[in-house]
This record gives sequence, C-alpha cells and structure tokens, in this order.
Amino acid sequence: MRERDLVGRQGFFVAEGEVVLRVLVRSPLVTAESLLLAEKRVAGLADVIAGLPDDVPVYSASQAVMDAVVGFPIHRGILALGRRVQEPSASALLASLPDEALVLALCGIANHDNMGGLFRNAAAFGADAVLLDSACCDPFYRKAIRVSVGAALIKPFARLAPGEDLLALLAAHGFEALALSPRGAQTLTETPRARRTAVLLGAEGPGLSEAVLKNAKAVRIPMADGFDSLNVAVTAGVVLHHLAFAARRED
Amino acid sequence: MRERDLVGRQGFFVAEGEVVLRVLVRSPLVTAESLLLAEKRVAGLADVIAGLPDDVPVYSASQAVMDAVVGFPIHRGILALGRRVQEPSASALLASLPDEALVLALCGIANHDNMGGLFRNAAAFGADAVLLDSACCDPFYRKAIRVSVGAALIKPFARLAPGEDLLALLAAHGFEALALSPRGAQTLTETPRARRTAVLLGAEGPGLSEAVLKNAKAVRIPMADGFDSLNVAVTAGVVLHHLAFAARRED
Repeated sequence: MRERDLVGRQGFFVAEGEVVLRVLVRSPLVTAESLLLAEKRVAGLADVIAGLPDDVPVYSASQAVMDAVVGFPIHRGILALGRRVQEPSASALLASLPDEALVLALCGIANHDNMGGLFRNAAAFGADAVLLDSACCDPFYRKAIRVSVGAALIKPFARLAPGEDLLALLAAHGFEALALSPRGAQTLTETPRARRTAVLLGAEGPGLSEAVLKNAKAVRIPMADGFDSLNVAVTAGVVLHHLAFAARRED
Repeated sequence: MRERDLVGRQGFFVAEGEVVLRVLVRSPLVTAESLLLAEKRVAGLADVIAGLPDDVPVYSASQAVMDAVVGFPIHRGILALGRRVQEPSASALLASLPDEALVLALCGIANHDNMGGLFRNAAAFGADAVLLDSACCDPFYRKAIRVSVGAALIKPFARLAPGEDLLALLAAHGFEALALSPRGAQTLTETPRARRTAVLLGAEGPGLSEAVLKNAKAVRIPMADGFDSLNVAVTAGVVLHHLAFAARRED
C-alpha cells in the first residue's frame, strides 16, 4: 500500500507511532478509520483501543508481517489510517476564529520536515489556525504529522484555492499581515501584536514574493553579521513566542 | 571510504555541498585538506579552487565514479575533507571569550539534525561559542555540518571531558547559567541577560539533569495548554533571540 494512493483523497491520511496515535484519537478534527499494530504493541494500547468506536477495525500482525505489508521496517509498530472530519475553506476558517486571533500563513513550504515543525510551533505557542497557499505540501503527509508530534492533527488549517489572494482574504477578516523577511523594514522586537495577527512565512531560499512584501508589514529578525540564515520553523517559533508575550497594541 | 574511518580522528571531517564548502574555505577554525568534485561542478567552483593553498589536492571525477567512490548517489557532487586547526579545552575556550559573552551549553544532544540546527541558531544570533558535554554527538558529522549550513565550521566549540562539571566551569569563568526546562521557575521573557550568560539545553525527552536544574537558574518557555513540546533547536532560537535583544541587566 503506497501512501500516495491514499493521501490527499477524501481526507485520508496515515499516522504512525504511539504519541501521534494518542493525539489522533483525542482530536475533534480527525477520526481514526482503522489501526494496524504489531502484536507486541497491542497490550500497551489497550486504553486507546477500548476508546475507539465499535466500527473501527484494529488489525494486528507480527512485526515481520507488518514490515512486509508496509514495505519497509516500521519499527514503531503502530499505524493508523485517519480521515479529516471536514476541510473548511480558508475564508470559513478565518471567520470561525475568535476576535483576538493569531494565525500562521504559509507560502510555498514544500518540505515536510519544515511543515511538521511549523505545526508543532503553532500548537506550542497557541496559534489559532494555519493557512496554506496552494504551493504548500500536505501537513497530513505521514512524515509531516510525525515531525509535528501530532500537532497537524489538532491545529485547524485550510488551503487557499490556486490564485486566491492571501492578503485580500486576511484583510477581509480583519487580520494584520506580518511578512517575515530579512529585508523587513522593522524588527520583530519593535512589532506589536494586533488583535488579529497573521504571520506570513515563505520557503527558505525564495522567501515571500515581492507582491506580498510590498503590501504587508515586512518584519525582520536581526541576525549576526555574515550568517543571515534561519530555518523557517525556527523563525516561526521566534515570532510566535514574541507575539504570544509581547505587549499588545491597544486597538 | 566510510565517514567513521575518518571522523573523530585527528580532527578530520567530511563536508558536502557548495554552501558548506564556501564556509569551510573562509573559516579560520578549519582547513581544507582535499576536495572531491563531480566534473560538472568544477567550473562553478573555480574561485574556490584558485583560493586554496597549493598543496591541497582537488580531485574530480564523473558523477558515476563519484557515486561509486562515495558509496551512494551524491547529488551535490561536492565533497571536502577538512580538519580542525585546534581543539581547545572548554576552559581555554571560555577564557578566550570577551567580557560580554553568550554561550550555548549542550547536554546529551545525540541527534545530528538537532546539533546542526543548534549551531545554525548559535551563528544566526551571535552566540560566541558552544560547549558540548561528553554525551553530545559530533557537530562535525557530515549531516550536522550540512544542517548547520556550515555554522559548525565557524562557531568555536569545545567538548567537556567525561565527568567535568559544567556548572563549576561556567561559574569559574563568570557565566550565569540559564537552564531551560518546562519546569523552570521563571519565564524566559522575565529573564534578563547577564554580561556573561550560558544557555543550557538538554535533549528532547530527558531534558537537563536534576542536578543541573537545581543548581542553575531554571527558565521555562510558556506553552499553550496541552501541547508542551518544543524542538530543542527551536528552543535555542527563541532563547537566543530573546537574549540578543532583551534589556541587559546592569551588573
């Protein structure tokens, strides 16, 4: 069974490992469709299995059979097929957020490790939601879920339609857009948080487009001379930590 | 040629890719011992090759031969054998730092991705040096260098001897030790920077030892309810950004 035959169709995804499985079964945003467990892992997951709806099948097999089914040695011995309950439009997701809200808006993030790390930080620092442009990779890809430590399964997200205007959408919902770039005119430390704030991040290398940088508030994280390079998930962590604890602007 | 037959002996290491190679040849802390390049990469590196000392051999081969020599497809087509110029003791390294200094002190970081990310952040936020306890992995492992975007080659570091007391060493050199832990008594935001500050980080999962937490100033990064999980390199980024820009304590 190849992941690509399942994922992206009708909201199915594959999750692996105990930590992620425990997040999955508690999240209101996703459902467990079936479990495939190495025999040695069944006893330790008795509470999870007991809590599943009756119609969710739980398969178990020896590690050798499981490795053969999966196609590679799956040391964790825990796989789940999951499904998103709903896939809101970006507009519907923004409309559902509280008056005071913080969102992460990602443009062209194609690396699953970075996507996972971004969701992990969004969850750790209490961002309310994540927006993805049409060039972003899937947060429900198995590795992205794993790197997110399950955050991809509990943090609401939505994907923009191809060509949909991110800045217009954010403005329509009252969000101030902060566009992170080494060329930003103001530093992060001097940037206050608006009631509704969106943090825009592009891929390492290309970064955000000129159009976005020109029409949003461009913010930079100062770096030491000669080493102007931050991982995008680290950038998100630094920005979200600042916004979570910076003095809020009165507005 | 296996990396483990070279690395860790007499300061040799293997570096790959153009970005890292360009950092290597400019760093005063390391020397290039030899280069192995795919033929197609030679022209683009003419300036690097011209700048090498005369006695540094530069080998080139077809991609196919290079893949066979390396043992796996080495798409970047650029490998260098490098060597550390000197390996200072932790005490000598601390003694060499300016009066006002910031160091990262790592305990039990065994994952090369995290090690690379930690060095990358140390460089980006201008930490002066990195200390490693004897349980940390090698920052000069090929993958750690790559993830660090070369920062491991320009940021001075030293390894403690097994059993050497990190806190005593830091105190002897006038460093205030900030020990990051979810159980820290004070938050990062309320933590000022001393003239000499050391940021102590443990591995994800076990974290820092009880002895360290008891005898250092334990600091926490508050996180959203129910998702108490930050990657260690992200943690370093958040802490170093805060210390780089927080008001300094007068002392």
